[in-house]
Amino acid sequence: MQCLIIAAGRGSRLRSLGDVKPLVPLLGIPLIERVIRNAQAGGADRFIVVTGYEGKRLDTFLEALSQRLGVEITTIHNDQWEKENGLSVLRARHTLGDEPFLLLMADHLFEPALVRTLLTVSRLDEGVLLAVDRNLANPLVDLDDVTRVAFDNGNRIQTIGKGLTNFNGFDTGVFLCTPAIFDALEKSAGEQGDTTLSGAIQILAEQGKAQAVPVDQFWIDVDDEAAFRRAEQALLDATRGKGNDGPVSRWINRPFSIRLSRILVNYNITPNQISLLSFSLSLLAALLFAQGGYVALALGGIIAQLASVIDGSDGEIARLKYLSSDYGGWLDAVLDRYADAFLLFGLTWHLHQQTPSAWTLLVGFLAIIGSFMVSYTADKHDNLMRNRIGNGIRIGRDVRIFLIFLGALVNQPLLILVVVALLMNGETIRRLLVCRE
Amino acid sequence: MQCLIIAAGRGSRLRSLGDVKPLVPLLGIPLIERVIRNAQAGGADRFIVVTGYEGKRLDTFLEALSQRLGVEITTIHNDQWEKENGLSVLRARHTLGDEPFLLLMADHLFEPALVRTLLTVSRLDEGVLLAVDRNLANPLVDLDDVTRVAFDNGNRIQTIGKGLTNFNGFDTGVFLCTPAIFDALEKSAGEQGDTTLSGAIQILAEQGKAQAVPVDQFWIDVDDEAAFRRAEQALLDATRGKGNDGPVSRWINRPFSIRLSRILVNYNITPNQISLLSFSLSLLAALLFAQGGYVALALGGIIAQLASVIDGSDGEIARLKYLSSDYGGWLDAVLDRYADAFLLFGLTWHLHQQTPSAWTLLVGFLAIIGSFMVSYTADKHDNLMRNRIGNGIRIGRDVRIFLIFLGALVNQPLLILVVVALLMNGETIRRLLVCRE
Repeated sequence: MQCLIIAAGRGSRLRSLGDVKPLVPLLGIPLIERVIRNAQAGGADRFIVVTGYEGKRLDTFLEALSQRLGVEITTIHNDQWEKENGLSVLRARHTLGDEPFLLLMADHLFEPALVRTLLTVSRLDEGVLLAVDRNLANPLVDLDDVTRVAFDNGNRIQTIGKGLTNFNGFDTGVFLCTPAIFDALEKSAGEQGDTTLSGAIQILAEQGKAQAVPVDQFWIDVDDEAAFRRAEQALLDATRGKGNDGPVSRWINRPFSIRLSRILVNYNITPNQISLLSFSLSLLAALLFAQGGYVALALGGIIAQLASVIDGSDGEIARLKYLSSDYGGWLDAVLDRYADAFLLFGLTWHLHQQTPSAWTLLVGFLAIIGSFMVSYTADKHDNLMRNRIGNGIRIGRDVRIFLIFLGALVNQPLLILVVVALLMNGETIRRLLVCRE
Repeated sequence: MQCLIIAAGRGSRLRSLGDVKPLVPLLGIPLIERVIRNAQAGGADRFIVVTGYEGKRLDTFLEALSQRLGVEITTIHNDQWEKENGLSVLRARHTLGDEPFLLLMADHLFEPALVRTLLTVSRLDEGVLLAVDRNLANPLVDLDDVTRVAFDNGNRIQTIGKGLTNFNGFDTGVFLCTPAIFDALEKSAGEQGDTTLSGAIQILAEQGKAQAVPVDQFWIDVDDEAAFRRAEQALLDATRGKGNDGPVSRWINRPFSIRLSRILVNYNITPNQISLLSFSLSLLAALLFAQGGYVALALGGIIAQLASVIDGSDGEIARLKYLSSDYGGWLDAVLDRYADAFLLFGLTWHLHQQTPSAWTLLVGFLAIIGSFMVSYTADKHDNLMRNRIGNGIRIGRDVRIFLIFLGALVNQPLLILVVVALLMNGETIRRLLVCRE
């Protein structure tokens, strides 16, 4: 599936953030790169980008991106970029040939599933399909600026335009077109002097050749700084695991880790480096624990909790910067197990210095083994429980580290180890019993 | 698929092991139950058993089995059971109706895949398909007693019988028949006075209606005590994991655990009970370690190794007695992790009593966490490595426990912990690096 992206306009309302709008980095990734990567994940495999304002700079960036992603990206220059966007679409007529194509805007972000829906749900014979958002209360939409769509029960588009008062959806800026769009563009320009894309869609609508495809996935038109901030927040929120977060992670760690990710995303730091940083901080905390004394204990607790917060960032950064990998997730899990064990061993050592006894060793040992077993049994248990209603509260790493943090602050290393040992081994035994059915 | 099983004969050559041959338990499970369970696993779902000698006892057993397995089992009595087996097949004519059926012998064992091959590989229009073993050197075959088959390049059976000198396969006793078999049986009895099943197959062969289906799966005719012993050994050998065994498991533990399973299989002991027994022995060994002193250490080492041997039996018993379950495998793995940790903690405690030092604690801790991590990383690593050539030596639980056993015998607890810590953490780090590619 070939894909045409309109990136010719100046985007002067986003000037505060960068001169060339498609190149403005949103959470570390230029807008047009997000559009291309998500379109690719959604099913497109060949790109034609119409450039205009500062076309040379865009050319340079897209050439490098093409190499980086191993995907074909052709650029076409539209020297009339100051005029309406329909002209940019017309420029690509010969390059696109007779095949249908996906039509996107460089400043409209969306998730891959939206494109996939458009490409698979409906059949396109002649004319255009337009992905339409039916959620008229969508908080990401700027009501003053959005293009509105009115369509009937058969999803046939009746009218399209910014000024509509009677409408039942928003234009997401994601189209699937046949070359019929070009004749419509010429007709619209010739007969009505309207060179907008919407003008051409309106003509196709009057011919019964414009179909709405209702979608409910994420999309946003990044048109001004307010929209840019909304887009950032929406992407950051989407990095939260889908229901996999434990209570401490969800309510305490995430708000911090997301703020951290928003900063880290602007630097050239990989998720694996963040995992290693978090691991190193945990080792430091364990060493502090082993020093003995309240100050070292409390400081270690704070650093351990800090490491736990940072540990949320690796996954967030991976998703925000298209760096997710199986290996990364696995490395993170393995390092977490080592970190847990070292923290609890540090505490055990701390305690054993204060009150040397076989019992302190036993409690520390049980805390270590219990923590490990909760992680060891997690996959099996979670897979079994997924099919049941009411997941209950997850007792996992976030809870463990938070207990260590609290216990260290109030100078109760023995209490921490006892509580962790009881909670974690209890949870493991509960899982063994529950999964037995 | 309906399935007819001939269980009418007396089987006098197996009298030394039991009066009613189909009920003779082979590794704890009566022959006919093995036939029914494996046929069911291979695709049969409704059973008709022709009984004869001691029919009442078979009836009682099969009624209970039918309830136990939740499968339909009908019995038909053949009072002429002292005559040839063709008559028993004829008895079932009306019960079987017009549909094709699987035809099995109560004393021919096979693995489910053999039946699945017969049911799926070839199409049956009219006549019979016979699963034929082309391995003329099959050590499980009794050459003096086996029915021989000669078939052509198109797999059409030419001749069948015990006395053939020119043959290229063995009759496995597993058939797929259409009702055409009944006319052939009557013709063979009427025209040639031959009431054997082979007689009818010969007639179908002459009509071009008997087809050989070459199979290479396990099968055996349990006709006399020698064959019975061969069958036992073959089933025991098949319980070895397919390449999942570590070196100690393969060369040292299995020979013992298989001998143990051969005994345990005759008692009403579940695999989970064996897992718990092994776990309890490991705890006992850990307690002995913690006592201090060489005698307790050596005794603990021996008991730990014994527990490791017994730990092989749970899976063997599960496979031999059709008791395998996901939960059982998981419980075993979780208990093994606890057992490993307790053994190493017992050793650490032992050492710490002799030479109290922070370093002994650290080494013990590293041995415990390393052992955990090797198990924690095993699935991911093994899945990745499966696609590569040369698996190398697996360093896992069998090696760990054997090191503990050897080290305890030579009174070197510190050495054990150091070696386990180095080997296990080294292996974990190696896996992290290897999987990174």
